[in-house]
Amino acid sequence: MAEFALIERYFSKLSRPGRDVLLGVGDDCALLQPPSGQQLAMTMDTLIAGRHFFPDVDPIALGHKSLAVNLSDLAAMGAAPAWALLSLTMPKIDDAWLQGFVQGFTALAGRFGVTLVGGDTCQGDLSITLQLTGFVDAQRSMRRSSAKPGDLVFVTGTLGDAALALSLLQAGKHPGELRNRLEKPQPRVSEGRALAELGVRTCIDMSDGLVADLGHICRQSQCAARIEVNQLPLSPGVSAYVSETGDLTPVVAGGDDYELCFTLPQTLRGGLDELPLQCTCIGEILTGEGVALVQANGSSLPLPRAWEHFAS
Amino acid sequence: MAEFALIERYFSKLSRPGRDVLLGVGDDCALLQPPSGQQLAMTMDTLIAGRHFFPDVDPIALGHKSLAVNLSDLAAMGAAPAWALLSLTMPKIDDAWLQGFVQGFTALAGRFGVTLVGGDTCQGDLSITLQLTGFVDAQRSMRRSSAKPGDLVFVTGTLGDAALALSLLQAGKHPGELRNRLEKPQPRVSEGRALAELGVRTCIDMSDGLVADLGHICRQSQCAARIEVNQLPLSPGVSAYVSETGDLTPVVAGGDDYELCFTLPQTLRGGLDELPLQCTCIGEILTGEGVALVQANGSSLPLPRAWEHFAS
Repeated sequence: MAEFALIERYFSKLSRPGRDVLLGVGDDCALLQPPSGQQLAMTMDTLIAGRHFFPDVDPIALGHKSLAVNLSDLAAMGAAPAWALLSLTMPKIDDAWLQGFVQGFTALAGRFGVTLVGGDTCQGDLSITLQLTGFVDAQRSMRRSSAKPGDLVFVTGTLGDAALALSLLQAGKHPGELRNRLEKPQPRVSEGRALAELGVRTCIDMSDGLVADLGHICRQSQCAARIEVNQLPLSPGVSAYVSETGDLTPVVAGGDDYELCFTLPQTLRGGLDELPLQCTCIGEILTGEGVALVQANGSSLPLPRAWEHFAS
Repeated sequence: MAEFALIERYFSKLSRPGRDVLLGVGDDCALLQPPSGQQLAMTMDTLIAGRHFFPDVDPIALGHKSLAVNLSDLAAMGAAPAWALLSLTMPKIDDAWLQGFVQGFTALAGRFGVTLVGGDTCQGDLSITLQLTGFVDAQRSMRRSSAKPGDLVFVTGTLGDAALALSLLQAGKHPGELRNRLEKPQPRVSEGRALAELGVRTCIDMSDGLVADLGHICRQSQCAARIEVNQLPLSPGVSAYVSETGDLTPVVAGGDDYELCFTLPQTLRGGLDELPLQCTCIGEILTGEGVALVQANGSSLPLPRAWEHFAS
């Protein structure tokens, strides 16, 4: 099948002109009308078979995750998702695979109001690059650089699920219900919007792990963070693993949870209770630099080595 | 070297905040201020080593071409380039290669006012995905779907240079000065802007070859095109090749020239002479469907098979 037939069969239907989409898939460019008075948040992530996902992963999950990791970046800015461009490189045309991928992508796109407006298809080893644009109120974006000493540090959801699922899969074991946390992460888009609305100005999504991602906030905000290890929110599966092994690595250094980590002044803490989101205070921002992991007895844990893309 | 150090060393310097770039490389998203009253044109293309370029191609040329092919899409809409996101997948960190790539990218970005605002880096087989956004006046965009019977068909520059250079390289021969046409195409951005300003409403950039790309215009405009083969503009190198071999394939079916093909009503023809661009009238738009190649004696040439990405 030629590229044009491929696009026509699978992708044109995802791209319906609307109020802000004047011209979607099928010309040299998409033509888009940005809403007046808003800023644009733009992100792009690549997922590569064998590196970011198992080559035989369920294509529905992969279609979901390709969009989810980018939605998570918008969530961290407090932006509302709008337009996607998708570049899909595949070894061959596999109709069953493509139907699954499009199904997973479409379901998540529909939930968050994302329209596919363009992209590219190529022949090659399986790899997916998605570029996503959202809208954000000029005064309400969240950045990594706004944390202040005295701020409290919060995370949404639970930590370490995706990393534990990955290590179980790599060891040939069944991760059970943790598998969905790795393969179908739920981007915290509405949570990010609600936090930005409340007045939160510092946020990051956790794709590289708590210490690495909170470390970005500390470096860019020129401050330090103290994390109370016994406050870290754990799912039953991760809690059982930690109790059994004493190993906190998936919790503090595991990537791919796509939960949000944010900081806020103590004065805003009460407002959090009004929001429809699950979050946990795990520590505070201090003067200085770096992230410290402190146990209940006051002693510090050694820092894990951050996961780095080229550290092979 | 870790991803963050890589980005810091090579890419952060390309991303300077400015009037419309509120936050560039280094957060979860870039934050951008679209100009009021304008539409956005968005495109994304992937180039893969061994498929879209020779793996040992000069990295300066590759940095140039990665941006040029996307600039060409903006040119075809009549848009002014603005923001780029770059996803670069590389087998390893090669400083000399990266310096060359960034040099080629930066030189072209500077010429056309492009700011790098974000992206991704991964480890894997060499591949480059670039997403580019430009601004376009709401009433002045050019599309594939606006051609009308009676319109004249024009192309900028000369045709077949890139395809002939490629076939010479594949045969182990030296393409001479044609090599730059393949490896460092010059996107017709100012030409596209001038054409849109003049009132041209139908344009495409030629990445797949004249017959295929003019075929897109015909299909989307529901009309036909008659091309006078003896009017096709040829460089001295391609002209010599055609004289010697009688083979017009690189001219009518060669991809990668990145010239513009546009149509305009006869009434606008005079305005073209005022513009600072080289273009040639090669035929006209008719009722019906499909592209016909007509020789000086009135006989038709058989149509070449279009190059298709998955036609292996």
